[in-house]
Amino acid sequence: MMNKGSLFIISGPSGTGKGTICNELIKHDDTFLSVSLTTRDRRNDEIEGVTYYYVSADEFRNRIENNMMLEWAQYGDNCYGTPKDKVEEQLNRGVNVILEIEVQGALKVKQQMPEAVMIFLLPPSVEALKSRLLNRDRETREEILKRISIAKGELSKAYLYDYIIINDDFDECLQTIRNIIVDRREKLDFVEKLQESI
Amino acid sequence: MMNKGSLFIISGPSGTGKGTICNELIKHDDTFLSVSLTTRDRRNDEIEGVTYYYVSADEFRNRIENNMMLEWAQYGDNCYGTPKDKVEEQLNRGVNVILEIEVQGALKVKQQMPEAVMIFLLPPSVEALKSRLLNRDRETREEILKRISIAKGELSKAYLYDYIIINDDFDECLQTIRNIIVDRREKLDFVEKLQESI
Repeated sequence: MMNKGSLFIISGPSGTGKGTICNELIKHDDTFLSVSLTTRDRRNDEIEGVTYYYVSADEFRNRIENNMMLEWAQYGDNCYGTPKDKVEEQLNRGVNVILEIEVQGALKVKQQMPEAVMIFLLPPSVEALKSRLLNRDRETREEILKRISIAKGELSKAYLYDYIIINDDFDECLQTIRNIIVDRREKLDFVEKLQESI
Repeated sequence: MMNKGSLFIISGPSGTGKGTICNELIKHDDTFLSVSLTTRDRRNDEIEGVTYYYVSADEFRNRIENNMMLEWAQYGDNCYGTPKDKVEEQLNRGVNVILEIEVQGALKVKQQMPEAVMIFLLPPSVEALKSRLLNRDRETREEILKRISIAKGELSKAYLYDYIIINDDFDECLQTIRNIIVDRREKLDFVEKLQESI
């Protein structure tokens, strides 16, 4: 019997390179990056099923009520969330799935899927974190303070993650996460072999 | 501010060397191995607070009712479990705590303390597992079948653990677990530094 894929959650404060890491992982590995569902309008440069799945507010509400969302949140007027069916479809096919989501969403997913492996990415230094949080043009003081507050909140939940990894050297960080993913598959295959043997 | 200690749960089928690993960890490292509470009588070669804490059935019941047990189970006429206060006392002092417990208990602890890092130990091979399960003298067929059934049940929950480690080379396995423990402390210290800086 083929083992199911494993679910990996990647979180971390803004600017730790989560997006770049995830893009590399899906480019070269047998992994699927979960695409979020949103109620907001598609912009011109965005692609349905790649950037987001675009649905109406009614459909989104319907999915929540039918327990078809692993997690969701509202930002401004729009809702964003992780569709359960797409994730499970890949896992059942034996494909590893990566969710790049913020901490609150991650904890909700973990409650529903306790087998999820949670990875928290950290910036290499205090300076790197600060420069990412503070140095953006055309932002009000309020927007900056809000971003700092979000980052503090995320960092305060890092201890709940299974793996805490510093993105100091990009290639090394990518390799560490790849090893976690590959190793898990190998170990679960071995567990199955042990189970079948006794 | 000093960080709290981290909680590590170590499980795995009979004969994977959990006990030996744990004894090494507490001998050389700043870690505390949780001692279970039991209602059974103390045997002559056992030491209060080292082998077990020995309490009456009334006290055990009292502790369950007051939510003072992280997990507990009954085997035959006796109850065994993990006292919450002893674990939290060490964690609050900044000491890492190790629980060597079976899978059902581990999952109960994880529900109450989601920050617990769960490590599942595997035997090096099918042969090693079998020889441990089958080759014991003076056991009935029923006892052997029961042990196999327990091992199958434990293996079926391995995917819920954060780390799955094969105890192939003892020193290497010990070092891997040590690295997980030491690394976590370092990372959590770094997280704290980041939080304080912004």
